[in-house]
Amino acid sequence: MQLKLILSFLLLTTCVLAFSQKKPSGKSNEQNIDVTEKGLIKISIMYPYTEGKTFNMEYYETNHMPMVAGFLGSNLVRYTIEKGLSSGIPNQPLPYMAIGTFYVKSLSEYQAAIAPNKDAIRADFANYTNVMPVILVSEVVK
Amino acid sequence: MQLKLILSFLLLTTCVLAFSQKKPSGKSNEQNIDVTEKGLIKISIMYPYTEGKTFNMEYYETNHMPMVAGFLGSNLVRYTIEKGLSSGIPNQPLPYMAIGTFYVKSLSEYQAAIAPNKDAIRADFANYTNVMPVILVSEVVK
Repeated sequence: MQLKLILSFLLLTTCVLAFSQKKPSGKSNEQNIDVTEKGLIKISIMYPYTEGKTFNMEYYETNHMPMVAGFLGSNLVRYTIEKGLSSGIPNQPLPYMAIGTFYVKSLSEYQAAIAPNKDAIRADFANYTNVMPVILVSEVVK
Repeated sequence: MQLKLILSFLLLTTCVLAFSQKKPSGKSNEQNIDVTEKGLIKISIMYPYTEGKTFNMEYYETNHMPMVAGFLGSNLVRYTIEKGLSSGIPNQPLPYMAIGTFYVKSLSEYQAAIAPNKDAIRADFANYTNVMPVILVSEVVK
């Protein structure tokens, strides 16, 4: 009798565990990324390549970008850094040495957060580059 | 005896199910995104803004980008489209009207896949824009 009770309990537990198994697939994860990014605002700080201009990627990654990201609070969804390798068109020069990008929910909140820190951000430029960046504000369509 | 066998089997099944439970949290998903993108190659096709130049975003999103993406096979991790809104520097013109980006694992595989389709891709340009794009090949650092 006691054995039958234990058996019933185990059977029930097995069923509960089996049906509560979550099966996350790679595909559903990718879809989550898309849903999250669409509609976000990107601020891309693009450093043009020109003969004689320099860019210190290590300083940019470990000091400058984390500093700016720290000003943005919960408005910042994520930020990325990319290193320019070449032009995708043969015989054309590299367009940009590096690009740093902030993905934010609100452009006005971004601007309000950056404004009081503009001097600190600009003063840090000389620590990693001697080129003036191009800045693009865009919206994620897909 | 038979009951004991069934009991043992159920106990084993319960243990296996309990320990094989995956517990994906929002946080670990975000970390997966970072891990996935770092080291990937980005091919960014950037359409400069110039007075009188046009760009049909609807055609680009529903026809051109899916066509090119279709050439890339499993080398393509994902692609994104963004719409230029403004310069991030006051009183500067919008740098780019639009940017389409392919995230791929291998640049040489990308080039090999695009080469035989270059004419079809270029012929489609006239259907959505009259500006020559700048193309940047870069590597995701963070």
